[in-house]
Amino acid sequence: MEDERMNRAPGSRKQLSLRCLSCREEYCSTDAGTCKECYEEASETEEELKSEIEDLKAKVAFLRLGSSPLDSHKRSSSIGFSDVVLVASDEFHSNPVSLLAHKAVLASRSPVFKAMLEIEMEESRSGTISISDVSYDALRAFVNYLYTAEACLDEQLACDLLVLAEKYEVKHLKMYCEKFLVSKLNGDNSVASYSFAHQYNANHLLQSALSMIIEDMDNLTKSEEYTHLVEKDPRLVVEIYEAYLSKQTNTAARSD
Amino acid sequence: MEDERMNRAPGSRKQLSLRCLSCREEYCSTDAGTCKECYEEASETEEELKSEIEDLKAKVAFLRLGSSPLDSHKRSSSIGFSDVVLVASDEFHSNPVSLLAHKAVLASRSPVFKAMLEIEMEESRSGTISISDVSYDALRAFVNYLYTAEACLDEQLACDLLVLAEKYEVKHLKMYCEKFLVSKLNGDNSVASYSFAHQYNANHLLQSALSMIIEDMDNLTKSEEYTHLVEKDPRLVVEIYEAYLSKQTNTAARSD
Repeated sequence: MEDERMNRAPGSRKQLSLRCLSCREEYCSTDAGTCKECYEEASETEEELKSEIEDLKAKVAFLRLGSSPLDSHKRSSSIGFSDVVLVASDEFHSNPVSLLAHKAVLASRSPVFKAMLEIEMEESRSGTISISDVSYDALRAFVNYLYTAEACLDEQLACDLLVLAEKYEVKHLKMYCEKFLVSKLNGDNSVASYSFAHQYNANHLLQSALSMIIEDMDNLTKSEEYTHLVEKDPRLVVEIYEAYLSKQTNTAARSD
Repeated sequence: MEDERMNRAPGSRKQLSLRCLSCREEYCSTDAGTCKECYEEASETEEELKSEIEDLKAKVAFLRLGSSPLDSHKRSSSIGFSDVVLVASDEFHSNPVSLLAHKAVLASRSPVFKAMLEIEMEESRSGTISISDVSYDALRAFVNYLYTAEACLDEQLACDLLVLAEKYEVKHLKMYCEKFLVSKLNGDNSVASYSFAHQYNANHLLQSALSMIIEDMDNLTKSEEYTHLVEKDPRLVVEIYEAYLSKQTNTAARSD
């Protein structure tokens, strides 16, 4: 026993290896990260940040009106005391469908609804707001977002909600949809996304799509979306080429 | 020059000292914290947590109704379209003062308001809810909290809001006040806080005050609050002694 311990303990390689306080694995000095003090500080900071997240989540849950669309399929109107009706009409449904809502909530989330409801307009007199070119599902998701700040997005719904968010100036929802659509960008949809972003002033999505397009210029002219965009809005195509040229000039200037 | 460098570089002490990737200071191997990989992971985690906090703060700002009491002195009624009046009456003011509010918001935050407003009670018929034994300032802070999840607390206001939160079952506000009052606990107010917490079922505050009292049993009987509590509610004093005894028994068992 004594011999065994003696053999293991005083090896010269052991002295160079350290044990990580986080993963508990051994490492050699070239793989060293932080000192003990910084590790302890970072651990405390992480705990504090996590606790702040818990507090903020509880605040969000408290401030939400009605049940979350992620929890159930109940509509915002389930909270009662509604004083306004939203009517969706699209070209595919002859019968308009309606949703109950609250003026105070709509006005607080959207300056456009606020103006409609505060000024003596048709909407404030009748207590009905007509929303055209929107499916019932998109309108329901839109209203739910105004009450809960949550939505179960897919790409189609994100586009529909972005259009509504732009129209009714709901900045928070617009950014939420943009972030989602940016996360779904790829070589196949970048041109269409770029065109869509331009149409609805979605600058974050526009810049991300543009960056993706000019990373892969060789394939640009081969896509159907490109041909379509040249016909529909050639100025937008010009902007792609200008951005590409500007990037090339910058790269060249940096390498000089 | 050459000589100087030679003198500094190959010293045996240098080989033992490492440079922290976080604070950039040198440290010796006994003060080592983490490996490089764990440091990088921790930095990424911190960035992610901070980004989540930003997202949650934006959500809170979006979900808030009306302006925050921390930003301005505007009342919740500034958002318009109110459909209910809250009337505060306390013993010091003969003229009751009133605040405009929204049934949907009150009902969503408090099951007590919900029941009052949904069932055919006096309140739902008249559109007026009387709140007794409350100052106008406390009622205003209470209603603001229901709209914004924010309040500028001092100890008096935290107590007033805790009483209202208990009465109207607004759990989130109650916990918010309890946390604030726990942070203000000290040797002078622990007995009074303990008694107050018991009266309003504030269990988090109760346990914290009790822990503080039994840490300093020598001074317990010397305080005025103690004499007052023995007269007012001796059973509560018995609970202090029972907790103290139980702690002593546990400590003794652990040291055996």
